[in-house]
Amino acid sequence: MPNPTAAMLVIGDEILSGRTRDANMHYLAGELTKAGIDLKEVRVVSDDRQAIIDAAKALSAAYDTVFTSGGIGPTHDDITADCIAAAFNDPIDVREDARALLQAHYDKSGQDLNAARLRMARIPNSATLIDNPVSTAPGFTLCNVHVMAGVPSIFQAMVASVLPKLTGGAPLLSETLRVDRGEGDIAGPLGAFAETYPDLSVGCYPFQKDGRFGANVVVRGTDPARLELAMKDLRGIFAA
Amino acid sequence: MPNPTAAMLVIGDEILSGRTRDANMHYLAGELTKAGIDLKEVRVVSDDRQAIIDAAKALSAAYDTVFTSGGIGPTHDDITADCIAAAFNDPIDVREDARALLQAHYDKSGQDLNAARLRMARIPNSATLIDNPVSTAPGFTLCNVHVMAGVPSIFQAMVASVLPKLTGGAPLLSETLRVDRGEGDIAGPLGAFAETYPDLSVGCYPFQKDGRFGANVVVRGTDPARLELAMKDLRGIFAA
Repeated sequence: MPNPTAAMLVIGDEILSGRTRDANMHYLAGELTKAGIDLKEVRVVSDDRQAIIDAAKALSAAYDTVFTSGGIGPTHDDITADCIAAAFNDPIDVREDARALLQAHYDKSGQDLNAARLRMARIPNSATLIDNPVSTAPGFTLCNVHVMAGVPSIFQAMVASVLPKLTGGAPLLSETLRVDRGEGDIAGPLGAFAETYPDLSVGCYPFQKDGRFGANVVVRGTDPARLELAMKDLRGIFAA
Repeated sequence: MPNPTAAMLVIGDEILSGRTRDANMHYLAGELTKAGIDLKEVRVVSDDRQAIIDAAKALSAAYDTVFTSGGIGPTHDDITADCIAAAFNDPIDVREDARALLQAHYDKSGQDLNAARLRMARIPNSATLIDNPVSTAPGFTLCNVHVMAGVPSIFQAMVASVLPKLTGGAPLLSETLRVDRGEGDIAGPLGAFAETYPDLSVGCYPFQKDGRFGANVVVRGTDPARLELAMKDLRGIFAA
């Protein structure tokens, strides 16, 4: 059975303007690979209502699971929750369970649960909450979309809350062979090698170091025995 | 007149598997902002023919300019050039101008222009070449799509070749005010401030440092005088 598929939707003008370098994509990609879920596509869109709605609908329809990152804080530009509700025609308002979480949190710290902070309790009617052990304001899951914060520490905590509930496939294993020859020299034999192992994925990632060309050949698959056999073959092919 | 719009298409299993952290998106975002071109969307797709074709067509239709990154080397998994040709129904084969560039390059270094390396001379019929001062193998422009290498040093060199030929708008300027208060405290007045300056974009990016919460308020716009006025206002609003 093929692994379940996933997509990610990153929401944020700050990434598209180059102000911030996204860190969540790389993190999620690694976690999903370990869990045996294939990340198939990532989209980054701006803080634009229609863009978020369209992307959420397209990715939700095309993949088993979607993760979003960003736009669920208390400020005027945090519109993700309302957009996801609109994408799935689910009513949204301040929800009592989320409000109670925030009230307890701000009571403890002696801060005011003002109107802005209360925005973070806006949760679609049919959603289930995602635990936020870092700063309390919850994420949520609606249909197959997990809506999470953009701040990396909170994003990572929410991924940890969500992942154990998902059914993964076999974890994708990978082995790397570094070849100190130009990619153009190894491409021919490497293509033949890849054809011999159609059940494995073979990638070639060139690098340049100290003025010399080399490449990391990465072989990925779910069967450890096949992977071992392939790597033995590969070392034979590229033995100096 | 609004600024021209752009999208980016990143091609690569190595990014979706978490093996490599993409660096080109952040670089391109910064360069486009400086040039007055609005990066509106980024998609990352795997080394899958139909996924690349579909994304290229969708982005090309929706935005003024598209930049792709990755998948134009000599190995079997480098399929971007053929996919872009297919997306625009343009014939593709080894092209004499590209072959001549590669031949001269490999003659000089005493290397063989073998079948694998010759793949890098596969260029769509109607495309114009993009100069690659780093390793010679050219990128190309077909319709409004600029096809570039994924290796960051080459990607950056190709961006430098392409950008001066594009017509940008007014560069987007930005100013940042750091406020040492939680985002929930400043969200109310910040929302009102944003409404006062509908011609500027106002973002709020929370951080946590040494156990205390703060936020960077970023104001963006193309008119320096308006930006200066807004920042003066903003400093007044959040003066301790």
